Amino acid sequence: MSNVNLTASYKLVSREFHPEPTVIDVEGIKIGGGSRSIMAGPCAVESRDQLLSAAKIIRAGGAQFLRGGAYKPRTSPYDFQGLEQKGLEYLAEARSVTGLKVVTEVIDVNSVELVAKYADVLQIGTRNMQNFQLLREVGKLAKPVLLKRGMAATIDEWLYAAEYIISAGNKNVILCERGIRTFERYTRNTLDLSAIAAVKQLSHLPIIVDPSHGTGKWWMVRPMAMAAVAAGADGLIIEVHPNPAEAQCDGPQSLNPENYAELMDDIEDLGYFLQQKNAKKRIVKVEKAII
Amino acid sequence: MSNVNLTASYKLVSREFHPEPTVIDVEGIKIGGGSRSIMAGPCAVESRDQLLSAAKIIRAGGAQFLRGGAYKPRTSPYDFQGLEQKGLEYLAEARSVTGLKVVTEVIDVNSVELVAKYADVLQIGTRNMQNFQLLREVGKLAKPVLLKRGMAATIDEWLYAAEYIISAGNKNVILCERGIRTFERYTRNTLDLSAIAAVKQLSHLPIIVDPSHGTGKWWMVRPMAMAAVAAGADGLIIEVHPNPAEAQCDGPQSLNPENYAELMDDIEDLGYFLQQKNAKKRIVKVEKAII
Amino acid sequence: MSNVNLTASYKLVSREFHPEPTVIDVEGIKIGGGSRSIMAGPCAVESRDQLLSAAKIIRAGGAQFLRGGAYKPRTSPYDFQGLEQKGLEYLAEARSVTGLKVVTEVIDVNSVELVAKYADVLQIGTRNMQNFQLLREVGKLAKPVLLKRGMAATIDEWLYAAEYIISAGNKNVILCERGIRTFERYTRNTLDLSAIAAVKQLSHLPIIVDPSHGTGKWWMVRPMAMAAVAAGADGLIIEVHPNPAEAQCDGPQSLNPENYAELMDDIEDLGYFLQQKNAKKRIVKVEKAII
Amino acid sequence: MSNVNLTASYKLVSREFHPEPTVIDVEGIKIGGGSRSIMAGPCAVESRDQLLSAAKIIRAGGAQFLRGGAYKPRTSPYDFQGLEQKGLEYLAEARSVTGLKVVTEVIDVNSVELVAKYADVLQIGTRNMQNFQLLREVGKLAKPVLLKRGMAATIDEWLYAAEYIISAGNKNVILCERGIRTFERYTRNTLDLSAIAAVKQLSHLPIIVDPSHGTGKWWMVRPMAMAAVAAGADGLIIEVHPNPAEAQCDGPQSLNPENYAELMDDIEDLGYFLQQKNAKKRIVKVEKAII
Repeated sequence: MSNVNLTASYKLVSREFHPEPTVIDVEGIKIGGGSRSIMAGPCAVESRDQLLSAAKIIRAGGAQFLRGGAYKPRTSPYDFQGLEQKGLEYLAEARSVTGLKVVTEVIDVNSVELVAKYADVLQIGTRNMQNFQLLREVGKLAKPVLLKRGMAATIDEWLYAAEYIISAGNKNVILCERGIRTFERYTRNTLDLSAIAAVKQLSHLPIIVDPSHGTGKWWMVRPMAMAAVAAGADGLIIEVHPNPAEAQCDGPQSLNPENYAELMDDIEDLGYFLQQKNAKKRIVKVEKAII
Repeated sequence: MSNVNLTASYKLVSREFHPEPTVIDVEGIKIGGGSRSIMAGPCAVESRDQLLSAAKIIRAGGAQFLRGGAYKPRTSPYDFQGLEQKGLEYLAEARSVTGLKVVTEVIDVNSVELVAKYADVLQIGTRNMQNFQLLREVGKLAKPVLLKRGMAATIDEWLYAAEYIISAGNKNVILCERGIRTFERYTRNTLDLSAIAAVKQLSHLPIIVDPSHGTGKWWMVRPMAMAAVAAGADGLIIEVHPNPAEAQCDGPQSLNPENYAELMDDIEDLGYFLQQKNAKKRIVKVEKAII
Repeated sequence: MSNVNLTASYKLVSREFHPEPTVIDVEGIKIGGGSRSIMAGPCAVESRDQLLSAAKIIRAGGAQFLRGGAYKPRTSPYDFQGLEQKGLEYLAEARSVTGLKVVTEVIDVNSVELVAKYADVLQIGTRNMQNFQLLREVGKLAKPVLLKRGMAATIDEWLYAAEYIISAGNKNVILCERGIRTFERYTRNTLDLSAIAAVKQLSHLPIIVDPSHGTGKWWMVRPMAMAAVAAGADGLIIEVHPNPAEAQCDGPQSLNPENYAELMDDIEDLGYFLQQKNAKKRIVKVEKAII
Repeated sequence: MSNVNLTASYKLVSREFHPEPTVIDVEGIKIGGGSRSIMAGPCAVESRDQLLSAAKIIRAGGAQFLRGGAYKPRTSPYDFQGLEQKGLEYLAEARSVTGLKVVTEVIDVNSVELVAKYADVLQIGTRNMQNFQLLREVGKLAKPVLLKRGMAATIDEWLYAAEYIISAGNKNVILCERGIRTFERYTRNTLDLSAIAAVKQLSHLPIIVDPSHGTGKWWMVRPMAMAAVAAGADGLIIEVHPNPAEAQCDGPQSLNPENYAELMDDIEDLGYFLQQKNAKKRIVKVEKAII
């Protein structure tokens, strides 16, 4: 049970075992291998109206995935815990209206089956990164899993958590850096973008970044999203709310529709720039090889 | 879902709500209100022989509780995961042989019922401190719960986790400080003994300390155990193995029988000293009140 | 002396006090206001040959500043402490040969005058961020100061450290994020890129980023440098060594000449892209204002 | 300059080099080897009256050392920076009135000589633990040095800092654990009492504990002071103010005279208990050896 002195011996997640980057297919949408997949939406599904309104905004801005929690793990038992099955139904309705794929969190083994019926991607939250029973359970499915980094998990422990899922049979794991807990108090967490490079060195799995939880401040989301893409992230997950001031949770870190639109525009341009740049580098390499 | 800016609004765990310290009765053994309850045993139940041998050592040294894991949450899926039900049976046998009460970890909602059949105290491990479904599930029982602090949990978050259990109906919660994750690498964790005073200020619940996980080094267990008792802890949970060099997990932090015996002797003496001292203080207060 | 509950009351560093971004002139080279100034060179000045060789590489790659330590603060008193005045002389020679501006560390009040004679920018290292006497001393000069963030300093404390310098009379302060100390052990430090956005919100001072110390691994320098620029950093400070394998310190985090050249190329392209993008945004804003 | 992967190669501070515990003589008062030396007094020397009043309280309670800052390192340049030389003169007067030895901080190389003229023990504060020039300067004196642990320093780095002082010629180093910076916000710092056992294992130097800065709350001082002594600390440094509500700094963590008196009484009793206990252990060992 040593937390720290692991002889890094994960296998299935390692790049040695699987040198090529894994690309995950979510009902036709690819994540990994240099994709810039965007998941956006409110922290929680609050009502049918709120969610449909959010979904249309998300769709219009160009993201491929709608995120939103039907089951919310909350620090206090007295806080809003989510709409549960009703929330899942709204998510499914939003999908059928907009065509967006649905990403939503599963918080315990007993609801895995139910959530999997509605979700296109199952999210494992930061507090459950080492809920090993839950990891094994989603490992039995074929459905893609978004595995958030524990807020005090080392990169090694995170990759071992992915190993639990893959060794149980499910290869479709997407990692998500969402900030770690440090002494700094200005931000909600410290977003560790070096995790992108580390994961790409150690593993073949795709990695996306959550600048909303990573910073806790909506006006930090754009610069950190740009930074994540420039560092090589395969995508982003971002909190967007039709009206952040009225959000039931995480309002201060949610983008409003205008800021979301601007962000999508910036990310698309940056993505195109990086793609062109990488293409040029490949051409130079090929030319050198010919000579 | 703010991690940090909670307006501390837990209720049932708070000292305001319940000014007197809670004393928990575990089949006749009291924990809390100045008790110095000792839980000792191996990290994992490894075999019938190992456990019975350990239990006899524990009994002889004077502890009232036998600890040992039948279900082990491990960072890697390839590490020993525990003997499971067989382990629980050995624990029950060790209890009937020695009269020790049994403390053992429950790691998921599906095994709560089974573990509760064998255990006298259900342990919730550090990785599950915010496994809210599991908290609610043990909250439905009457059996005492030992709630370990999450390795990156604030004291506030820890008390909220206890609130989940109590608000579900189970008042018998014992808190356990087991070290937090910091930059320091010499020790496995940084044992935060100030949590004892903080918990006693904020809450009525008993708090015990785990100097084995808190330090990761057997030779640090004695000084930190003495410190915990001097700081006012209601008890200790300590790893003891008949032969630490052969332990399947946590050998470096396990006491051997001789060191366990010496520790028990020291703790007993220190406890007696503190009790006498507190008694004298009470007498002085009463005398002053009479005059 | 509260470390944490400061009512943020810095004045001269604050954006409220000085709404426009400060642009610092280092002998004709500007830092701040969207510059992408690059400082590069070895951790330590090791010899005349090593430094001149490094300086020519740095010059050829396009950076404007040569960095290199003549005085090295070392954890152990038995480690190489720098060539001291000899090192300063080599730096001056390298400047006259290449035209690069010189950035070098000053580690105590008694050598401020001497170092200032040779340096174009005085660096205050992470361990001296709260060496208040040293801050006041460099505050008496007009020479630009590069103030590295303390490895466990909050953003607030860092800005207060800058306030010490400015309130002593020297407005030319450049902040440098170089990674903070966290529980993660894969990287040497955790590079906190959210500090860029935070500093730009709270202050008018320029901020650059050190991805070499921030990660401790040369192969992480490129992605984190790209991320820093995308997040809005005003520049970078990067360790480059003619032969990292033979470096007297920080070899593992130093770029070799080829990787340095590639990085400079990538940064230049990214910078150009971002500049075009910002120009377009300004045009759109103006057009909207006209209508 | 690696922060983390030091091959621990300090020499003069190591127990291998000097197996017996070092006992430091401060004008006749011993620190180390199981002493329980108490240093007490206000955070800052505020006025002649305040200091003389504090000194008489400290003397009456039984401590041997008066602590108080004449030079105060403050996060903000606009905060009270200490009475400087005037403060040193008051300290000297308080010594001649009470017979207490004086412990006071030296914050820069230029004032070492002056402070050393007045102080019996020179304190190096947490922010200066790696101010290597200052370490070397106090290393040239014979006067005892109290070296506080840096708030984000590993135990290894702290011992290396002591090595700087000893290798410069001054063997009289007393280490002081004062809390480290972690994610926890309830306490000002996290007091790391395991540092006591670590230091005693690795080094021969005495170690004392500062529960005032370590917790930031006066009501936590007593339990943490008891814990420190039980864990084997050679002494304590504690903030006491004649009237904490009016203190210019650190009021919330300062004991008032009554709480100081109670603490001294408790520490004395605990110290006597531990001494008797150790004496008995030695007798048992001798008896066993005879048989």
